[in-house]
Amino acid sequence: MALKAEIISIGSELVSGQSLDTNSQWLSRELGSLGIPTAFHTTIGDDLDDNVGVFRTAAERADLVLTTGGLGPTQDDLTRDALALAANVGLREDPESLAAIAAMFARRHRTMSERNKVQALFPEGADPLPNAIGTAPGIWMGLGRATFACMPGVPSEMRLMFQEQVIPRLRLRHWIERIIVHRKISLFGRGESDIEAEALDLTARGHVPEVGITVHDATISFRIRGEGLTPEAAWSQTEETADLIRSRFGPLVLGEGTTDVADALVAELTRTGASLATAESCTGGLVAHLITAIPNVSPFYPGGVVSYSNQAKTNFLDVPAELIQAHGAVSPEVAVAMAQGALRRFGADVAVSTTGVAGPGGGSPEKPVGLVYLGLATRDHAEARRLEIGPEQPRDVIQSRSSKQALNWVRLTLQAWPDKAGSDAGSR
Amino acid sequence: MALKAEIISIGSELVSGQSLDTNSQWLSRELGSLGIPTAFHTTIGDDLDDNVGVFRTAAERADLVLTTGGLGPTQDDLTRDALALAANVGLREDPESLAAIAAMFARRHRTMSERNKVQALFPEGADPLPNAIGTAPGIWMGLGRATFACMPGVPSEMRLMFQEQVIPRLRLRHWIERIIVHRKISLFGRGESDIEAEALDLTARGHVPEVGITVHDATISFRIRGEGLTPEAAWSQTEETADLIRSRFGPLVLGEGTTDVADALVAELTRTGASLATAESCTGGLVAHLITAIPNVSPFYPGGVVSYSNQAKTNFLDVPAELIQAHGAVSPEVAVAMAQGALRRFGADVAVSTTGVAGPGGGSPEKPVGLVYLGLATRDHAEARRLEIGPEQPRDVIQSRSSKQALNWVRLTLQAWPDKAGSDAGSR
Repeated sequence: MALKAEIISIGSELVSGQSLDTNSQWLSRELGSLGIPTAFHTTIGDDLDDNVGVFRTAAERADLVLTTGGLGPTQDDLTRDALALAANVGLREDPESLAAIAAMFARRHRTMSERNKVQALFPEGADPLPNAIGTAPGIWMGLGRATFACMPGVPSEMRLMFQEQVIPRLRLRHWIERIIVHRKISLFGRGESDIEAEALDLTARGHVPEVGITVHDATISFRIRGEGLTPEAAWSQTEETADLIRSRFGPLVLGEGTTDVADALVAELTRTGASLATAESCTGGLVAHLITAIPNVSPFYPGGVVSYSNQAKTNFLDVPAELIQAHGAVSPEVAVAMAQGALRRFGADVAVSTTGVAGPGGGSPEKPVGLVYLGLATRDHAEARRLEIGPEQPRDVIQSRSSKQALNWVRLTLQAWPDKAGSDAGSR
Repeated sequence: MALKAEIISIGSELVSGQSLDTNSQWLSRELGSLGIPTAFHTTIGDDLDDNVGVFRTAAERADLVLTTGGLGPTQDDLTRDALALAANVGLREDPESLAAIAAMFARRHRTMSERNKVQALFPEGADPLPNAIGTAPGIWMGLGRATFACMPGVPSEMRLMFQEQVIPRLRLRHWIERIIVHRKISLFGRGESDIEAEALDLTARGHVPEVGITVHDATISFRIRGEGLTPEAAWSQTEETADLIRSRFGPLVLGEGTTDVADALVAELTRTGASLATAESCTGGLVAHLITAIPNVSPFYPGGVVSYSNQAKTNFLDVPAELIQAHGAVSPEVAVAMAQGALRRFGADVAVSTTGVAGPGGGSPEKPVGLVYLGLATRDHAEARRLEIGPEQPRDVIQSRSSKQALNWVRLTLQAWPDKAGSDAGSR
């Protein structure tokens, strides 16, 4: 018989519509990829009677019930109490969980308040699910026909607990048998409809394996779904299609999984051993942030300048004040000079710059909101590129698109460079 | 007695997590602003038994049930059938609805298929809800203790039907009388349990107005719910509590609505006319990005340096190489020197710096992952602060927390500064 799952989200801010629940979607997708279909999502507020009623209903109609939220230390966190009431049992303190919560506070040099102790209470017959990164342990407990796994509402804590605590327990019960793998191959540098038109053979209904296209922040992803009795069998079903996508879209391909433009760029920096410097005006630090979000980039990224004022462009990047006077700060000439200045000042092998009108104010007929110049400099070459992201786009989209275009330009440039000689990453 | 609403979203693509349900959030907010609290959201797939079961449960626990989806012409659109089965009645054809569907096809010069006729079928005892912009009429029907309003899943059609058909029917019954407003006041700089402990009088069950606490990325928000017969009356019910929160938490308060730390900092920069420079190591550009994400900050933010390498700290910020040698790059001495260098080089009134171990690698027993020093310099003062964010935290959390702490330190510093003289923002 097929299992049925129910996902319950708890929080008055969710049921009142003040916040949008995204945990249920994430959990449904995860369960789906493990072969367990979700039949119900239920959202309730911080009301004890409603919680008890919903837990009892779920205990009758589902085999696996995942709950998120209501495990914090405050008065409106009711999951523990509601689960105990639904099961007609009392609460008991778990010494190990109490010690783990106290240790977490000690590590952060904070005082544990009396209220935090309620997080070590569990319904009788329940097991704690350890929380590696927060104070709220989860709860694992049988009720009616169902097994409940109660997790925190904070998405990062919930995800880790699901992966490290819940999945292994489901495998122990053999509730996870078929294996479904989802592979994601991401591309950047062309529009979605262009890519889609070139992939109609793959995305057609009935294609095995199933292939879908999604787009997020201008990065386009092919999702390939493979299925089998073993991870190897599920994976091998996807191989041919993955290879075809890679060969068809060549340099546009960033890589697999969560790889985005910055990851692919850092991979090229690591391969070539080249060092990169940045000089940002309209992107205001976002290019640097995207690079430094990736661990272990420091050998290849000495740093960057956010030259928001014209004077900073001159003082830190040697852009002549007369050049800015003559062409304006938003110009191909200034973009090139910024990149050249960053290259020289940081002693880097390649440098990239941004200058533009991020809006919403500051546009003019000649230089509208969304106009951005990128500059790129190497030891023997420098040039500028013009982007028109569109005056209708909000500031965050203009900053994000131009940052990703800047990173991608460096990535494509490095593709033509050889592997670094030997193993000395810093010698170039 | 207070009414209770339940919102039911129908569609296999929702319960499997392929699509995110946003209709429920929208409807909850609308109902909330009309004084009808939503107690439950339920999401189900295109399964007849599950639909019947969920409709029967809702008919017992809610007064008003709004459903979205399942009204189309295809075989997996089951709302009509499920509602008739739940009520133990048959389906009948409504001639007016059939004529309206036929007219819609004629206006669009399309042929009406035989299957579209099912959209004119209604459970006995139900009334049609006309659809002004689509082919699927809605259904208005009593079942159990509840009244059901079944609407299409297409958001534009659902919204119009709710506003034009459902709200007038709720007013006719006098179910809509009161107006509800939600206010959000955000704080930063202390832990959630500390804040909660100081606000137990406000968050106690039964407090009028109702007050809740939520936390997002270390920013803590009080949510106040006011209620009245007019918008003014609902607002005025919140005033005293809002004032109390502001006076009790004083400098921690960032502001109302979507205000976060960076917005509150930029407001202080604007008020004082001070200029800020940044010097970042472990946050790698995130502090600059948070500042420049806000429009019109350029008069107050000349720029910043991302000094990822030690050499960049020396070349761009005048941090003596011997100082780095003696104390290490992650040290209070270097944090102070970075801030002082940025202050001088950018000619700013205040400068802030970050240097730390963002992880996941690079930690040591003396300097573990999550250890971050902040530096702050003004024309006559400089100091460092130590943060311990915790080695178990992921890189993005360490970078985000230390960036927000840096911005908040500047904000609190500026609170003691006077308003700028006259209206010349740049003269300071």
